[in-house]
This record gives sequence, C-alpha cells and structure tokens, in this order.
Amino acid sequence: MRNLIAALIIVLALPETALALDTSTGPVRIEKVADGLRGPWAIGFLPDGGVLVTEKRGRLWHIQDGRARRVAGLPEVAVQGQGGLLDILVPRDFAESRQIYLTHAKPQAGGSGTALSVGRLSADGTRLTGTQVIVEMTPGSTGGKHFGSRLVEGRDGKIYMSVGERGDRPAAQDLSRHNGSILRLNRDGTAPGDNPFVDHPGAQPEIWSYGHRNPQGLAMDAQGRIWANEHGARGGDEVNLIAKGANYGWPIIAYGRHYSGSQIGEGTAKPGLEQPVMYWDPSIAPSGMAFHSGKTRQAWRDNAFVGSLKFDYIARLAGSPLAEVERIESPETRRVRDIREGPDGAIWFLSEDRGALYRMVPE
Amino acid sequence: MRNLIAALIIVLALPETALALDTSTGPVRIEKVADGLRGPWAIGFLPDGGVLVTEKRGRLWHIQDGRARRVAGLPEVAVQGQGGLLDILVPRDFAESRQIYLTHAKPQAGGSGTALSVGRLSADGTRLTGTQVIVEMTPGSTGGKHFGSRLVEGRDGKIYMSVGERGDRPAAQDLSRHNGSILRLNRDGTAPGDNPFVDHPGAQPEIWSYGHRNPQGLAMDAQGRIWANEHGARGGDEVNLIAKGANYGWPIIAYGRHYSGSQIGEGTAKPGLEQPVMYWDPSIAPSGMAFHSGKTRQAWRDNAFVGSLKFDYIARLAGSPLAEVERIESPETRRVRDIREGPDGAIWFLSEDRGALYRMVPE
Repeated sequence: MRNLIAALIIVLALPETALALDTSTGPVRIEKVADGLRGPWAIGFLPDGGVLVTEKRGRLWHIQDGRARRVAGLPEVAVQGQGGLLDILVPRDFAESRQIYLTHAKPQAGGSGTALSVGRLSADGTRLTGTQVIVEMTPGSTGGKHFGSRLVEGRDGKIYMSVGERGDRPAAQDLSRHNGSILRLNRDGTAPGDNPFVDHPGAQPEIWSYGHRNPQGLAMDAQGRIWANEHGARGGDEVNLIAKGANYGWPIIAYGRHYSGSQIGEGTAKPGLEQPVMYWDPSIAPSGMAFHSGKTRQAWRDNAFVGSLKFDYIARLAGSPLAEVERIESPETRRVRDIREGPDGAIWFLSEDRGALYRMVPE
Repeated sequence: MRNLIAALIIVLALPETALALDTSTGPVRIEKVADGLRGPWAIGFLPDGGVLVTEKRGRLWHIQDGRARRVAGLPEVAVQGQGGLLDILVPRDFAESRQIYLTHAKPQAGGSGTALSVGRLSADGTRLTGTQVIVEMTPGSTGGKHFGSRLVEGRDGKIYMSVGERGDRPAAQDLSRHNGSILRLNRDGTAPGDNPFVDHPGAQPEIWSYGHRNPQGLAMDAQGRIWANEHGARGGDEVNLIAKGANYGWPIIAYGRHYSGSQIGEGTAKPGLEQPVMYWDPSIAPSGMAFHSGKTRQAWRDNAFVGSLKFDYIARLAGSPLAEVERIESPETRRVRDIREGPDGAIWFLSEDRGALYRMVPE
C-alpha cells in the first residue's frame, strides 16, 4: 500500500517534456524520467534497466518501466543537516552478487558519522536483505555539516569512499580520524593490505588520501584514475586527482578564504601538499561527478560533468589539466545534486529543487 | 685477459677499511667493497650474492667473492657529457629470467637519447646475451645534459624509468616527446594499456608522469608508491611522489630560479601542477634514492636515503611529508651517485670521486 502511494507521487516522464537546448558541442534534449522526489541525492543503474535513486531523508526508490517503487531494508539513517541517506553504488558484479552499497549518516553516541552499508537487492527489486554497516567513520560530530560522501568502484575492484571533515578542520590532517579523507576498501569494508597507512602507527588503515574538506563528487576516468571534487571554503571549491597517500592540504593550504575574508592556514601552496587540478572562485558548490565515454557524443569523450548546487548548472570540464569549458544551464539544472553517465550514454542528473531525475541526450 | 687486468685494478675491501661513524640513530661503519671504479653510476644486486656496477664510460662490472669481472655484451652506448651507461635493474624474477635491464645514452642521428636495453646474463655472470634496445626516447639532443635515468620495478611488475628533459625545457610539457617524464613499461618495453595517455592523440603512450627536469633518483616505498628526486634549477631540487598522469610542472612552476637569478615560469605553484613533497635550497644535486626496510636498524624503517653529488653526503629523509632529517657525511660520501639497500639490509652506495662501492652497516 505504501509502495502504491509512492508510485502515485512519482511521475514518470512523458515524451513532451523533452526540451531542446543548444550547447557548444551541439544540441541536446533534456528528458524528465521521474519527479516527485524529495531531496534526491544519488543515482544507481541496475543492469536490467532499473534505476535506483536515494533521497537524503532516508528513502530509496526503484524506478523501472514507468513505475517507482520504494525499496525497504535500509540501514539506520540519521537525518540531520547535510546528513541522511547519501550515495549509492551498484557494483559491476551486481548481476551475480545483487549487492547494493549505500553511504549514510549513522547515529552515533552524541551525534552521527558517515558510514557505508551493504545489502542484497531482492529479485523483485523492492527490498534489501542482510543489510549491515561495514564501515563507520571514527566518531563524527554532533554538527550537521560535511558528511561527504561518494562511492566509486575502482578498476582494482576496491571501493573508494569520500568522507567530509564534519566541520572539524584539524581532523582532516589527523590520520587517526577518517574525517576529510578518501577511503579505499575491500568489498567487505576491510582495509586492503596495500593501502598507504596500514603500517603507520595509529592511522586508520582505510585512508587512501587525506586533507580534504567536503568531497561530494568522486569519479573514475577511462584510464582508471580517481578524481574528486570538493566544497572548499569561499572561492576554493576544488577538483583533485587522487593519489595514494597524498595530502590535499586542508586546512593548511586552500585557494578559498574564510567566509570572514581572512586567509586560511599558510596560503595556497606548500611542498608536500597537493595542488588541485582546478578550483572555482566563486565557489559553485559542486556535487556529483562523472566522466563521459563519448558513446553518444564524441566531443564529450573523457570530459567530466559536475553539478553545481549553488549556480544551477552542469559544468563540463575538458583538457589537461581539466578546466571548466562550458556551463550547461536550463530550467531543469536547478541544484544539481548528482550526475552520471547512464548505460544509454546519456547524462543523467538529479535536480534537488525540482525533485526530479533527468536525462540529457545528444541530438 | 682483459678481465684479469680489470680484476687487478678493482680492489676488494679489507676488514680494516671499516670506519666507525656516529649518526643520529646510532653508530654505523662504512666498509669499502670495491674501488678502482671510474665514474660508477649504479648498483644491482644478484640473488647469488654478486653485485653489478655500471660505469658511465660504458663498462659493467660483476663483483663477487673478492673478484671483479667485466661483463661483455652491452648495448651501444654514447658517452658524452652526462650521458653514457647509466642505471641497472635486476628484476625480481632474475633467477628464472636472467634478465638485466640497463639505461644508457644511445647514439641517434645528430645526437643521443636515453634508452632502455635488456639482455640475459650468462651463467658465469660475464656476458649479456641477446641484448637489445627496447625503449628509446623520441629524438634526444645533441647536447650532453639531463639524461635521467633511473629504473624501478613496480609492485605491479611494470618498469618505471625516468627520462631527463635534455635541457629542452618546453619538451618536458610536450606529451609527444619523452623528455622530462617518467615512463611505465611492460617488461618487453611496450606501453601498458592502462597508462594514462594511451588514448591521448599524439602522446607517447609510455609516459606515466611528466613536467620533470632531470630525475636521477627513483624508488619504491614499502607501500608500493613510486618516488623520484630530480635536479631542479638553482635552489629547486625536488622529491616528488609520482602519480599516474600527473604533471610536475617544469618549466611552468619551480622552486628554483634560473642561474641568472630570474624567476622561472609562473612561480612556485599552479592548480593542475603537482607540488614537490620537499625541495632543497640550496640545491644538493641528488642522485640515487632508496627506502629502507628497517631490517638492520628499526629507526631507518620507511626512511629514504638520497645521495648528494654536490655537498658530498647522504641525506636521510623521514616523516610525512618526507623531510630531510639528517646529513650523513664521511670521507667516503664524496659525490654519492647511487644508493640502495642491499639484501643484507646495509645501505650500499657509490662515490663517484673515490671510484668506490661502500656499504654502510649499523653497529
């Protein structure tokens, strides 16, 4: 009954909603796949054509064949501030494993922490079974800021997961805490033996890179490299190429400034600390990130697409080093929270404000 | 007969040459293993206790059981300026493959280029057979500067090879040329399919990272990460943590200055360009690099050792980010050209000025 009501709320796209939009690489149309979503956060594609969408408030939807059904069996989610049900990963072996990975804020004594849970999707796609928390950040915070969190399955089969610093700046430099880091995990949540800090006394062995602020985009390119975007301080949102064991500098160096206008830490660069590949000033509040295969538009090949929460557009990044070459804007690109290339080669994205899932298709 | 004469020239160590030296982690003794070498450049350890030493002038020595024998069957070497026979790599599967890898300046039309050759060491250890060039840089230069070149076998079984920019600064930013890069190679010299620029039109597919000046040290740490040191401009010798596809900035950014004192490029930092992990000002002219296992001295575990050609010492680097914590100096540490941890856990090094091979052993 609950699923039935939900199905009524979510409206599936009708052909007439498709709009033509000119972009610098040619026209695209933006088609609505579903609306009626409340605070949608992440998209996952199932191999049978189904699509999963998370809502921060703690709901997971299974959209297929003109129908949206709610998925039960979620982990316990702490919905507070920027925290809630966050990213989703459908691993490459889903057809065999049926595993679905979810990041979320997990209730902790006195607050909440970013966590990773995994469960198996039932054959009818409406229930996760055996759901359990397999990674949980070192005590998070009572605050509601900077949870991260995005997931990527590396070419090496490991899971990469971004964790925000929870507003606790020094913790981003503290290897004994997960705050402000990108983790690399085995499929069962344990730390691989070749992670960079496994032999470092007191360090959390899951840490792959650190010194991040609030990474809300994570993507793998065609060469298998891992990239992240993160919310920096004012005027310092970054794109980073993630290297094993590297320190991305927060809060020692940053291109942004405190909201008061005062300088952060020691400036913009320091030996031993990584430079971003690019930064946005003013900040765009980036969320989601995907590299395109070029399948439906050759000019998009190896381009990165990033959503802007603040300025309501999709950023297209190209070149080496990556730089923003285009801002794709339409009535649909309001607070773009997640962006992915679908199995169809279209750019799928979520508008948080419009509560809708769209596909952007080259014409 | 030639080998016999050579054996007379090279003098093997006598116990009385060991000297006691105080270091900040405790006393060490420095033992001479061989002298009479002329311009020794690199050390390779064979699994049977033999040691190979290259001389830039184009000779390879096999030192074992108190005897030094010359190894025949080398590739053609162009000896000019800083070029000649350079690094050596004994791969982990040597016992089965018998392969020996050598870098060298190779004669090219109008000049020379850094190249990689491989051959099989005969059972008696005095001859390379089937020696062939498997990698050769895009046309090098008529000049005699900045050949690189060091070799490391990665944990992934690939060969990493550094190539200097040959004094051609812009070429270090040109992906169509090997100058100023670190290459990643299959054992047969071909480019692995997951190298970062294999799909990049016009790029050399062997390139793993670029924007280097003259990297003369390359080492893998216990976590499998690849590190390089390089000769920068005045006041800008660097240590870099090497990341796939990354651009280390030369000559756009640098901590050093032109010898005239004028600024290089655009300053010391720029988004998209990597920062060094540390730099030396004044420049020390670093050559060779090795991480220590801690086997013979726990305090050395995960420390890096780097030779200084200019200031005649061995640098010990520790911490995160790596920083120079000690300068080990003795009469033997004159123009330290190469440095390695031996199978015995001692620090082996070559003094170019003294023409000698030493081991530094904790007491």
